[in-house]
Amino acid sequence: MATQSHRLTEQASGVYIIAATPFDDQGEVDLYSIDSLTDFYLEKGVTGFTILGMMGEAPKLSEAETTLVMERILKRVDARVPVVVGVSHSSNRHIERLSKEAMDLGAAGVMVAPVPNLKTDEQVYGYYASIAKLLGRDIPICLQDFPQATGVHTSVSVINRLIDEFEQVVMLKHEDFPGMRKLSQVRHDSEAGGRRRISILVGNGGLFLPQEMLRGADGAMTGFAFPEMLVQVCQLFSEGKSEAAEDLFNIYLPLLRHEFQYGIGLALRKETLRRRGAIRSAFVRKPGPVLDVRDHEELSRLIARQEKALA
Amino acid sequence: MATQSHRLTEQASGVYIIAATPFDDQGEVDLYSIDSLTDFYLEKGVTGFTILGMMGEAPKLSEAETTLVMERILKRVDARVPVVVGVSHSSNRHIERLSKEAMDLGAAGVMVAPVPNLKTDEQVYGYYASIAKLLGRDIPICLQDFPQATGVHTSVSVINRLIDEFEQVVMLKHEDFPGMRKLSQVRHDSEAGGRRRISILVGNGGLFLPQEMLRGADGAMTGFAFPEMLVQVCQLFSEGKSEAAEDLFNIYLPLLRHEFQYGIGLALRKETLRRRGAIRSAFVRKPGPVLDVRDHEELSRLIARQEKALA
Amino acid sequence: MATQSHRLTEQASGVYIIAATPFDDQGEVDLYSIDSLTDFYLEKGVTGFTILGMMGEAPKLSEAETTLVMERILKRVDARVPVVVGVSHSSNRHIERLSKEAMDLGAAGVMVAPVPNLKTDEQVYGYYASIAKLLGRDIPICLQDFPQATGVHTSVSVINRLIDEFEQVVMLKHEDFPGMRKLSQVRHDSEAGGRRRISILVGNGGLFLPQEMLRGADGAMTGFAFPEMLVQVCQLFSEGKSEAAEDLFNIYLPLLRHEFQYGIGLALRKETLRRRGAIRSAFVRKPGPVLDVRDHEELSRLIARQEKALA
Amino acid sequence: MATQSHRLTEQASGVYIIAATPFDDQGEVDLYSIDSLTDFYLEKGVTGFTILGMMGEAPKLSEAETTLVMERILKRVDARVPVVVGVSHSSNRHIERLSKEAMDLGAAGVMVAPVPNLKTDEQVYGYYASIAKLLGRDIPICLQDFPQATGVHTSVSVINRLIDEFEQVVMLKHEDFPGMRKLSQVRHDSEAGGRRRISILVGNGGLFLPQEMLRGADGAMTGFAFPEMLVQVCQLFSEGKSEAAEDLFNIYLPLLRHEFQYGIGLALRKETLRRRGAIRSAFVRKPGPVLDVRDHEELSRLIARQEKALA
Repeated sequence: MATQSHRLTEQASGVYIIAATPFDDQGEVDLYSIDSLTDFYLEKGVTGFTILGMMGEAPKLSEAETTLVMERILKRVDARVPVVVGVSHSSNRHIERLSKEAMDLGAAGVMVAPVPNLKTDEQVYGYYASIAKLLGRDIPICLQDFPQATGVHTSVSVINRLIDEFEQVVMLKHEDFPGMRKLSQVRHDSEAGGRRRISILVGNGGLFLPQEMLRGADGAMTGFAFPEMLVQVCQLFSEGKSEAAEDLFNIYLPLLRHEFQYGIGLALRKETLRRRGAIRSAFVRKPGPVLDVRDHEELSRLIARQEKALA
Repeated sequence: MATQSHRLTEQASGVYIIAATPFDDQGEVDLYSIDSLTDFYLEKGVTGFTILGMMGEAPKLSEAETTLVMERILKRVDARVPVVVGVSHSSNRHIERLSKEAMDLGAAGVMVAPVPNLKTDEQVYGYYASIAKLLGRDIPICLQDFPQATGVHTSVSVINRLIDEFEQVVMLKHEDFPGMRKLSQVRHDSEAGGRRRISILVGNGGLFLPQEMLRGADGAMTGFAFPEMLVQVCQLFSEGKSEAAEDLFNIYLPLLRHEFQYGIGLALRKETLRRRGAIRSAFVRKPGPVLDVRDHEELSRLIARQEKALA
Repeated sequence: MATQSHRLTEQASGVYIIAATPFDDQGEVDLYSIDSLTDFYLEKGVTGFTILGMMGEAPKLSEAETTLVMERILKRVDARVPVVVGVSHSSNRHIERLSKEAMDLGAAGVMVAPVPNLKTDEQVYGYYASIAKLLGRDIPICLQDFPQATGVHTSVSVINRLIDEFEQVVMLKHEDFPGMRKLSQVRHDSEAGGRRRISILVGNGGLFLPQEMLRGADGAMTGFAFPEMLVQVCQLFSEGKSEAAEDLFNIYLPLLRHEFQYGIGLALRKETLRRRGAIRSAFVRKPGPVLDVRDHEELSRLIARQEKALA
Repeated sequence: MATQSHRLTEQASGVYIIAATPFDDQGEVDLYSIDSLTDFYLEKGVTGFTILGMMGEAPKLSEAETTLVMERILKRVDARVPVVVGVSHSSNRHIERLSKEAMDLGAAGVMVAPVPNLKTDEQVYGYYASIAKLLGRDIPICLQDFPQATGVHTSVSVINRLIDEFEQVVMLKHEDFPGMRKLSQVRHDSEAGGRRRISILVGNGGLFLPQEMLRGADGAMTGFAFPEMLVQVCQLFSEGKSEAAEDLFNIYLPLLRHEFQYGIGLALRKETLRRRGAIRSAFVRKPGPVLDVRDHEELSRLIARQEKALA
């Protein structure tokens, strides 16, 4: 369908937005809002999309819905920016099937988080190696290093080994926490060791984005409901204006920190996107967080304060 | 399709076998082996089936495969014994859809394990209550209490509250570990408190089956590859022959304990079923355990010793 | 020794500083720095101390050192503000012994986190009830609700039950995360239910202090290396100046967020205290985090930016 | 005091009993029972002791009690068999101090479990390496690999690296679960790789002792209340009589499996030791498991069945 002009590479940088999956108030996939949200993200200047991640409620979609969402976004993006598809699953067969489907539809690459219960370096390496072999050289892979959600710790030496052995491993979504030293180590090992330098985009809601950019990150892969800030911050860093970048970042930090809360953060993010007109409903599929009156007021107050600070 | 003569009730007892899902050596669902395995279980005298549980590799099946496996087993069982279908999922919508599909196909009821990240009594109760309301009174529910796998601890007071409020909650799969006191408490609370007595079938591979029967369990819900022992043990207990029951149990205990090992236990179980002619391949979908030469020899030795002890 | 004029009560508010335990570069307890750090905290206006908590490296002190540190701080504070002593331990006998020792030395009360492996509401309640009975009515207790570190989740209903049954439970250190709704529920239940209102001081480095104050917190119990900000923020909130309070808070938020990082946060905090002249060495006992050159530069930059913003 | 003739070496084999710490009914250390229990273990033929482990309630002893228990047992053993002392602690200083104290009193070596929160191979290696360097070559070390309790996974490659770099690492207490393949790998790597062969003693209550002996274990390090069985089983294996060994093991397996239950297992073990006359009270320090009437009856029944099977 779409061209694969945007195949994911080690040069990826900027903001790969973790796209929410919009539902209507009855919980059905809202195609209209998929389009409007996609437009919203593009207007804000994102350099890429990551869809069907954990914050995209991917595990709550049926197979048909998964295909529907993927198709719809890829079509709407229309190859203007690369789209990475989250394919993490408990079955390798499923990962293979979904990855191929995604690439056929025009995805730029896939993002894989490890299955739970991998404990040692050898086990984590073994898992990713089996996936890389299964998918082959033609499907670019982003490693999702998110131990707070998966319980799996991917060491620097495992990351290095994967970089060395699999050219299709082109990106690390860095969201270990605390994880700044790990980021520096991966960068140091590629600089000092002549190792291939991959793209590193940071997650955790962007809570440490300025520090991570200074340590060698190439950008952010997160879903903060004000992506324009992430875009500008990355842009300013790329221009060497780190102080201006962080000044801007800090204006949004209170709200970003608020959205950083696990669980309820998704509901806050969707509600903020709804208020901004990006989606029609903030519905989160059950079981999932629901905002109460207090939460709404709190969010309103934080948004108002942010607007005032920006004014 | 099938009649619903075997709707799950509080009177359920004996052995509800946790059915393996057979694949061929390429990992495809093996319909022939589904039939032969179903026949095998029935010949061994099980009083019910539980399909699509964790040990049935349910999370590794596609939606179409899930339906296929469910239909095939239900058809082969042909209403001779009740079939419980595991429907645990991260989305309530999915649980609802799969439960209705299962009941329409002739299932006797559904088994539900809680989603991860439920922490307090109120949260666990809230989850199960929402599922019970969603499914309604016409779908009997078995609570799967398996904290080692889910990380969720369902307290006796939550179990009691669910029994009191939802008549469709008719069974507890008890596999907390250690959990014998919990079993006694649930039984005590129904006897002392005039509370409805539900069926309790025990899991954990049956490792404590005799002790649990003496504490008031009604049988076992597990998948030990020698189900005839579980059947006879439950039968002997129902006849008041607890010493004879435990004598028999102990002959199988070394192998049962061997199969109890998390992870590799599934590979050992499938291999044992293969050797017994119940299925054609012991294949476990990836990522999953694979037996090496040493594991095979060890299993052979334990089976040979068991056969000798039975001779 | 000291008078007990500062017995902890439900009226406690403001900033109870989580005091670091200073060591010299060889890892010995540094009495000189204990004094200077105590003075530093008092000069910054804290309304109370909490010593021998997790961030005070209490589990790494010998029994003699524990007594030494406790005595030294209590003597230096000299009853000017109340001092809460962390007494969490795997043995109830130890908790009893240490609590009595602390109270005899002039402590205002004790803080108790639950032992690991408590799972259900009944278990958590049972643990705290046994401690409350053991210590008796004369030792005020602060419940430390910090699931990220203990793995134990204390529900609102458990907190309420403890408030109802044990008058000595006078304070909650609130650091569940995300935990803002829990805070609101505890407050709601005391307002709506005629339940005794206890003091709630918030932890998690103060990351959500303004939001928590608006939800009914009475202050903070955390160890941010710029306690004067916490003090002023609490003061402004008590004067109803919530906007000014949050404006001030936000200036410090980047650094506060930086210190919030688990593990390395303690090293950053001690280093900041060292740079501010409060202690002579930033040494953290082994095994523990050690800052590298990059970490030092990053900290310097963030402090410089903060100073500039304040100027 | 005692001679160090029993310094722990790679040749250690047989049964190193995990010694319980006896208290009286008021929870005080019972010196009389320490002596009688020590005599009991020696009479049953153990080849070594491991004291102050998790099942020895070490974290619930004061420092003075720790010294008292250590001295008393070492004196009673009187250098007849080697005594390993558990020194695991959150502070390296404490490990160093306790290890030196133990060796001075005549211990054969120390056992160290890693602190929690070590995640990657490098972190686990780093921890053990720092301890090995701290203690030096003169203090033999037993690595305790017990992830179920510590949450830390020590990979085969970390074990190998420690064997290669630190000659004082002479023993592995193997109780990963499931862990049989790991045991085989460590053995394979020393046989195939010319690597130093260390002693491997197995834990987990001995639940898989025969299988582990066949895979290359040198014996058991566990505290089953019928140590004479463990002794005989190890002896029979050393004589090549594996079938006779396992026949004997299986007679005790039902009770051994019963004692294997985490938490309550310690109470069951102490009660069994009390019934056998080895200690005067089965008291477990608070918080800890307490047997109820049902538990007592169940234990009585299992012991009676075992006696009958042995008759």
